[in-house]
This record gives sequence, C-alpha cells and structure tokens, in this order.
Amino acid sequence: MTRLARLTEQSLIDRIARIARPRGPRPQGLRAVLGIGDDAAVLASAGRLHTLFTTDFLTEGIHFRAAWAPGVLLGRKALAASLSDIAAMGGVPSSFVLSAGFPRRTDATYALQVARGIAAQARRFGVSLVGGDTCAARSLFLNVALLGLVEPGREVRRSGARSGDGLYVTGRLGAPAAGLQLLKAGARHGRASGARAAAIRAHLDPEPRVIAGRLLGLTGLAAAMIDLSDGLARDLPRLCAASGAGAVVEQEAIPVARSAAIVLGGRAAARAALVGGEDYELLFAARAEHHESVRRLARRIRLPMSRIGQIVPARRGVRILAGSGRYLPFEDLRAGFRHFPADA
Amino acid sequence: MTRLARLTEQSLIDRIARIARPRGPRPQGLRAVLGIGDDAAVLASAGRLHTLFTTDFLTEGIHFRAAWAPGVLLGRKALAASLSDIAAMGGVPSSFVLSAGFPRRTDATYALQVARGIAAQARRFGVSLVGGDTCAARSLFLNVALLGLVEPGREVRRSGARSGDGLYVTGRLGAPAAGLQLLKAGARHGRASGARAAAIRAHLDPEPRVIAGRLLGLTGLAAAMIDLSDGLARDLPRLCAASGAGAVVEQEAIPVARSAAIVLGGRAAARAALVGGEDYELLFAARAEHHESVRRLARRIRLPMSRIGQIVPARRGVRILAGSGRYLPFEDLRAGFRHFPADA
Repeated sequence: MTRLARLTEQSLIDRIARIARPRGPRPQGLRAVLGIGDDAAVLASAGRLHTLFTTDFLTEGIHFRAAWAPGVLLGRKALAASLSDIAAMGGVPSSFVLSAGFPRRTDATYALQVARGIAAQARRFGVSLVGGDTCAARSLFLNVALLGLVEPGREVRRSGARSGDGLYVTGRLGAPAAGLQLLKAGARHGRASGARAAAIRAHLDPEPRVIAGRLLGLTGLAAAMIDLSDGLARDLPRLCAASGAGAVVEQEAIPVARSAAIVLGGRAAARAALVGGEDYELLFAARAEHHESVRRLARRIRLPMSRIGQIVPARRGVRILAGSGRYLPFEDLRAGFRHFPADA
Repeated sequence: MTRLARLTEQSLIDRIARIARPRGPRPQGLRAVLGIGDDAAVLASAGRLHTLFTTDFLTEGIHFRAAWAPGVLLGRKALAASLSDIAAMGGVPSSFVLSAGFPRRTDATYALQVARGIAAQARRFGVSLVGGDTCAARSLFLNVALLGLVEPGREVRRSGARSGDGLYVTGRLGAPAAGLQLLKAGARHGRASGARAAAIRAHLDPEPRVIAGRLLGLTGLAAAMIDLSDGLARDLPRLCAASGAGAVVEQEAIPVARSAAIVLGGRAAARAALVGGEDYELLFAARAEHHESVRRLARRIRLPMSRIGQIVPARRGVRILAGSGRYLPFEDLRAGFRHFPADA
C-alpha cells in the first residue's frame, strides 16, 4: 500500500485538474485565463477587471501548534498566505470566504481571539469577509479562499521571466525559519526579546507584501513574480520552470534577516534564507533596463528589493554561486540540504 | 473556561464579519451586494453578471468516517454542498478552488479515488478546478470554495418570501438521515440492497439541485430559496427570519423518501424528513399565482416540487400542523425533538 506521503511527484490538485474537463459550453464570464500552477487563478470577467482566485489553509499540528500561536496572530496568519498569493499576481485583494474547524474542546476565548485576528487583518488590507462555514473538527484548521482584482493583461505570472532579467527579492529572508526553531526549542511569543522576539514574530505574523506586489504589477516592472512561501530553493525553480528559463543566484547577494543571523549564526541563517520557507517575500524578475526603477520603487515604499542574481537560458539550469566561487545546482539544496555550501 | 461547543448563540463567521469593517474605498468590482447570511455571497462585477461565492468543508470524524465513504463518493460530496449553495441562489456554478488535508498515513489509492470523485463531479456540473492547496493534516478534510454567476437582480435570496406565498420543497426528504443511521449501525455501502442501499447512497452521494435551482431563479418563480443542508426544521426558520415572515407547514404534505419510510418506519421517517438534515433539496417560496407554473416546471424537469404549506405574517410564527390537528412551533422541533408530534 502506498502512503500518501510518498505521492510526491504530482499533487492531488494537479491530478484532479488533469482528469476534470468540464463538458459543454462554459458560462459567460469567469472563464479561466490562467488556471492551476500560478499563485492564483486568473478568471476573465465581462467587465473591466479580471478576477483572481486563491485558497490556503493552516492546520494544527502541521502548520502551527496552538500553544505557540496566540489566537490573534493565528487569525492574522490565516489571511496572510492568500493575501501574499494575490500580491504575487500584482492584484488587489477584495473579498474572502472562511472555513473554520475547531475541536469541541477549544477554549472559546481562543476561538474569539482567532476571529479578532482575522477581522483585524481584513480591515488592515481592506478585504471583506463575505461568507463562510464553521463546524467542529478533530483538529483546528482555518481555510481562506480570497478573490482579487487585476487589470486584464496586468497580472504578473510566473512565466514572464527572460534571459538577462535581473532577479530580486523583497525584504530579508530567514527570520521565520529562525523563529520556528526557537519555538520548537521552547521559546514563547511574548517572553522573548530582541532578535529572538523578532524571529518568532516573523514566523507567527508574516507580512504579506500586498502594496509592493501591486506596485510591481501596475508599473509593469515585474516581468514574472512568485511569493516565497516555500522558500527560495523551491520557489525560484518554479518560477524558472514556468518561464522556461534558468537562473544564477549569488549567495552573498541574498538578504539575510538580521534576527536570523543573530539567532542562528551566519551560516545557518544563510541556509534558512535559502530553504527555510514561510518568508512571504516576493521573488520577481525585471528587465535589466528597469533596474533603476526597481531601486526607486523600493526607496519610495521603504522596502528593500535586493538583486540576487539573474535569469539565464534554461540549459544553464538553476544554480547558486556560493561564497567559495563554486556553482551548485538548486535541486541539491532541496534534497535535504546535504550539498549546501555553508556545510561544505 | 467556556468551551467552543457552548458558543452557539452566534457563529464565529458572524462575529468576524461584525468586527471587520474594511477601511477606505473598495476596489471597483466585486462589491458585496449581499454578504454573510445567505447561501452564497453576491458580488457585483462591472460586467453583465454578478459573481456568487460560497465555501463548504467536510472533515473526517464529524461529517463522515473514511471507513463509510468510498473515496469517489467522498470526492463527489465535497463539491455537492457548494453546488447546492449556488443552486439555492439561482446561479450557474463556474469555478472552484480546493483545499485538501490528508493524514500522512492515508492510503494513496484512497486519496486518488477522492480526486477522481471530485473530478467526475466537476465534469458533471461543468465546473472547473482552478487552484488549490494540499498539505498534510491530522485528520482528513476537504474544503471547496466555489464561484458562480447570476444575472443582476435574478439571484434568489432567502429574504424574498411574503405572506400568502406557497412553500415548496424539491424531491423527497429523510433518506440521508436514514442512511446515516444504517451506517452508524454497521451497514456498508455496496453491501446493502433495495431501500437500505438507496438510503445509504442518499447520505454518501447527495444530488445538488443545480438545474432546478437555476430554472427557479431564471423564471422568477422562486421568490425566496434556501437549500436544506441542515434540515427543514432549521432551514425554514432561517428563510422566514430573513424574509421577516412566518410559515405554516402541513406535516402530511411533507414528501418523505420511500427508502426512509421503509428503513425507519413511518413515524421516524417523518421525523427524519423534518430534522434529519443533509437533504440538499431546495426549499422555496413562490407567489400563489405561480402555483401552476411551479407544477409545470416540476413535470418538465421530472423533479417533484411539493407544496408543503405557506408563508404567513411573522406574528403567527413558524409552525407545523401535525396530523393530530395541533399546531406546534418549529423551535420545539429543533430542541431535541422532545415535542415532536410523531412521539406524542
């Protein structure tokens, strides 16, 4: 018997999509311009704007432990992943439906804190809760399905990168992975301070880059974009595969979060920035002639946008130039980090 | 400490909606014409059609047990609830995103059967899977968020019923509750026959009334509509509350499924038809002058539409006329069925 955990070569979502081919004419409107395989689907409306559609969930014991996550922060995080998906398409998030499953033993105060966190995050990003489903569940989970809007043709896909483009990331990477390590080791939110507190906060309360994503899309500066929810080592190859391109990243150009460097030390922080995941920063490609415009936009919105490398032809693969001067393929980074340069 | 199970007076979804008031101007398009509190939200698009938006989930141990539900049927059911919501608004279902959480121990064959069931249901109802999220989870759950389309002003709300309207249900009620009772008692799908098999099938593989709902909406025959996912005893008071009206239902006019009558016996089947839930039939109100048109539509699509009573002024409450000739308030039915006429 094959356990699901081994079914890694193709996700369930892809399999369903492959075998589900709706018959007959599609209703007018909401035709899928872009389906599975990007940060969000793009649905054509008869009107002026296209609709973006994405979904994400958090579930206890896998994505979080209730003991680690104050209810308010858990609620905020439940919306963050979907907001980040819409940001990575260059869209404006609009309205969402929420499914919440709580074990019957859940403390009502905790559940209401979660509700408060979701509501606060919704207010902050100007999105409306328009429906939902709540029911008992064996373990706590929160699912958000979020709609967004984008001007036709302005959506930023993963597939738009071309050889010669610069490769950029917003913000600094590695802090959420450092925070997770602290939480696993027994540190608690609200009891740590300084860099430790910052790292824990980065894990529990990630900041979706909604304004940056929207501006990178509207200005046309981002030719391709993806959010780093699974980490640079997984998400850069996805962007490259969708674009039919390769990439070279300079390890020393990757912006490592200060809190990660303090908590983990330089080498482990550099590794966390590559493979840690849950950063929710944006990775994007921009044409070489737009480099100055990207820098200007970064200054204007006070968010670092670091050039970490460039897009190259597909045959050159997706590689990282380590501090040692050696090139290493990205797939080796993902395979349990065994060949990670910092360990060499 | 208050356990969540006691927090019954107001759902979490309502609480979040109350405290989440997005600041600032809303983006053009997808403005909520109708938010929480109906079968689906109605979002105004700049184009010709409005967008409907709904979400539902199934979770192991609460909605189903994996041992009861063949994977294919579980997959079909995961879409059925959302399809039924769109049907109850008079809309056309369009595209959906899926979140699937599977325990790591899940047999891959089972997971693929679930995928096959979702895909088959999607093909059958002409809806497209456009995105999703899969991840490990402590207990199996499937969440569907579904978009639909409806002509502006043609959406059928819960709030449109007026005193004097006839009250109708599609199909026959009670079979899913009978099926659930059989499954709890050890019966298994594929091993039962006749009425027992029909009841089990009704529970595991409900039929969303997509065509009936669409026609009742398009023709304007349904003035108010709701699906019976929680049973007549819960859903009729919801329709009445939204409409600011009361209702009188004749118990003898409620269409009881033949399989429920055979499996449960007449009295218990009558009770199941009222309080059993998971019927996914449509309950609607139609103006008295439309009675013949409703009958004609029912004949044309070969789906029973039974007149079970009528809408009355709110001060007369929501009551049922039992076989004994006594009127009983619906809230008594919900309160543990203690006052249920069949037990009197």
